[in-house]
Amino acid sequence: MSALEKLASLFKSFPGIGPRQARRFVYFLLTRNKDYIEELVSLIQEVKKGIKVCQSCQRFFNGNTKLPTCGTCNDKNRNSEILMIVEKDVDFEAVEKSGGYNGYYFILGGSVPILEKEPEKKIRQRELVQLLEQKLKNSDLKEIIFAFSINAEGENTVFYLTNLLQPIVFEKEIKFTTLGRGLSTGLEVEYSDTETLKNALKNRG
Amino acid sequence: MSALEKLASLFKSFPGIGPRQARRFVYFLLTRNKDYIEELVSLIQEVKKGIKVCQSCQRFFNGNTKLPTCGTCNDKNRNSEILMIVEKDVDFEAVEKSGGYNGYYFILGGSVPILEKEPEKKIRQRELVQLLEQKLKNSDLKEIIFAFSINAEGENTVFYLTNLLQPIVFEKEIKFTTLGRGLSTGLEVEYSDTETLKNALKNRG
Amino acid sequence: MSALEKLASLFKSFPGIGPRQARRFVYFLLTRNKDYIEELVSLIQEVKKGIKVCQSCQRFFNGNTKLPTCGTCNDKNRNSEILMIVEKDVDFEAVEKSGGYNGYYFILGGSVPILEKEPEKKIRQRELVQLLEQKLKNSDLKEIIFAFSINAEGENTVFYLTNLLQPIVFEKEIKFTTLGRGLSTGLEVEYSDTETLKNALKNRG
Amino acid sequence: MSALEKLASLFKSFPGIGPRQARRFVYFLLTRNKDYIEELVSLIQEVKKGIKVCQSCQRFFNGNTKLPTCGTCNDKNRNSEILMIVEKDVDFEAVEKSGGYNGYYFILGGSVPILEKEPEKKIRQRELVQLLEQKLKNSDLKEIIFAFSINAEGENTVFYLTNLLQPIVFEKEIKFTTLGRGLSTGLEVEYSDTETLKNALKNRG
Repeated sequence: MSALEKLASLFKSFPGIGPRQARRFVYFLLTRNKDYIEELVSLIQEVKKGIKVCQSCQRFFNGNTKLPTCGTCNDKNRNSEILMIVEKDVDFEAVEKSGGYNGYYFILGGSVPILEKEPEKKIRQRELVQLLEQKLKNSDLKEIIFAFSINAEGENTVFYLTNLLQPIVFEKEIKFTTLGRGLSTGLEVEYSDTETLKNALKNRG
Repeated sequence: MSALEKLASLFKSFPGIGPRQARRFVYFLLTRNKDYIEELVSLIQEVKKGIKVCQSCQRFFNGNTKLPTCGTCNDKNRNSEILMIVEKDVDFEAVEKSGGYNGYYFILGGSVPILEKEPEKKIRQRELVQLLEQKLKNSDLKEIIFAFSINAEGENTVFYLTNLLQPIVFEKEIKFTTLGRGLSTGLEVEYSDTETLKNALKNRG
Repeated sequence: MSALEKLASLFKSFPGIGPRQARRFVYFLLTRNKDYIEELVSLIQEVKKGIKVCQSCQRFFNGNTKLPTCGTCNDKNRNSEILMIVEKDVDFEAVEKSGGYNGYYFILGGSVPILEKEPEKKIRQRELVQLLEQKLKNSDLKEIIFAFSINAEGENTVFYLTNLLQPIVFEKEIKFTTLGRGLSTGLEVEYSDTETLKNALKNRG
Repeated sequence: MSALEKLASLFKSFPGIGPRQARRFVYFLLTRNKDYIEELVSLIQEVKKGIKVCQSCQRFFNGNTKLPTCGTCNDKNRNSEILMIVEKDVDFEAVEKSGGYNGYYFILGGSVPILEKEPEKKIRQRELVQLLEQKLKNSDLKEIIFAFSINAEGENTVFYLTNLLQPIVFEKEIKFTTLGRGLSTGLEVEYSDTETLKNALKNRG
């Protein structure tokens, strides 16, 4: 296998990339000049080096500092009464971009499929329990938001985490919540399912 | 133009039907037996005859009774404090099917496009104002729900109706509400827009 | 079930129509005036009455004449050396519209699925054999074109008909052909499959 | 801008990649181990180094040899009477994979949009003219195949090249051809356009 074919095969392992687009990437790189290639290579090397995993929320962050935790977790102005659990880094980014949330986060790193036999291997269970035990000692945590996608696997993850965390928080007054369901932007009433409409009615205002 | 072509051209006027599917309908009918055709024809004739427009909510209903209003409007067990305004009959059906609503309805019959010069021709404005004036006299109406699709035209319709109805209800304590926005079934956090996420956070529970 | 629901359920049997669009059709008809409904009903009744099945090519045609065969089959200016077998009436229309063919037709009325146990029930086998025997006696037929879609079922139909017709024509010099394969309008070289490219190369010019 | 953001922005310049998928790529790389990153980086560096542009057909090839031309151009067993002009390297690959062609190639490197003012900047015009002049002296070239996509830009490129090359070849007997049009795999007769059907009829066999 030539370098060209090896590179195409690596690109094929990128998320969402098939064999055809993988080859397009290779030909695309072949037509780039030396500066482009050098910048790409040095950024790929750098990104892994410069990035740390936050010891608190577990998200990737640009760790130029000596701190073991990310800027969001270090931010004292955030509301320490709420912890939001999301599945992945891009979900964290979407919520931050919305500007509607000012609490802390935990990146679960995955979700729990229905009938999964080893759920603890699919998610950052140990890290979540650890963070929670620590927050229960030191903070005024009052609410945990499960911010997962609205589908069977998301709901199963909520169910699994509720059972997992209930015994840990049971003596404290901590509320488990989920993101509000309703009509999302662009949705037409006619095409809304029953569950969505019921919630849209409940959450009207 | 032959009967075949004339019929295809009529089918082309059906909602969502292009010339190709219109011809398919014709060939489909040609292969049906006499009973099928007779049933189709008699149902088309009957449906128009049997159906009345409800004098209250303006929806089509199966009017075997002498009453000028539909079964939903006649149902005394419904919550007379709420009136929901929807765009069309299928929206009414979707909300009823959800089982989450027990008030009364008004079918607006359309929506108001942005910059529309004659909005009163696009919707059942006169009928709405009439119904409202009557309800203000005789009922304990406390809330009007605008249940429109979440897009620019839907929002414009809310804006237009708010301005239209405010002067009519101004001395009463009547609340204008809209359907709650949030994550609809199947939506992933990552792909949610800012507005949807903000509302999903606000409506969490 | 009300007339409205019965009609929706009939529309659901139309090709390509789901329950939602079926209801839309009903509401659409409810908003039409009396003239529209009357024209629709009379055309549906008329179309079946006015249309005959051509005794030769088996297609539906507007039979205002006393003739048992359609205008195309009656047209003496067509090339009697070629007979094209298509699956359905709309295929006949597409070929006629292309203006590239001047021979005669036979509408097979279906295709033969792979592993079908009773292929003779899926297609107009008896009528085809009859037409062919008659043409072999009276005409200068030299070529039969199988004009089917380029997929497994289309190819299986070619295979089935070849085996069926070979014994009938075997003493005559009659050629069996299929439509030329190649690049169709809009297709990009990069996305063409091997079979299409091979044929596009063979048929270059 | 952090290394993470810079890398996402570089990935966004890859063909077919939007901002969201670009970020996914970055997070994907963050979760890869050191070996994966090192292999990726070294292949990206290597691919550009190891790859040459063939001096004859202009395609990229794995140039471990000292030869200035690629293996395909060096292959003496190919049919020197035919030259196929394709738009890009992946088109060359698709044709080779089809196994239906045994002549030589030229990679045009682009196509000519309609009303383009500087077509010579969009394609490898100089290299094509050079190759052709050389082939006219030394080889028995008899046919040039324009193997472009079946759309307006593809047809315009054929038109432009025909005008460009005619004066060069005019004293020789050289035929200009294009790929055969017809039904491509998966296409249904009913949905075929007039041009495709006409050609499918012409190329039947």
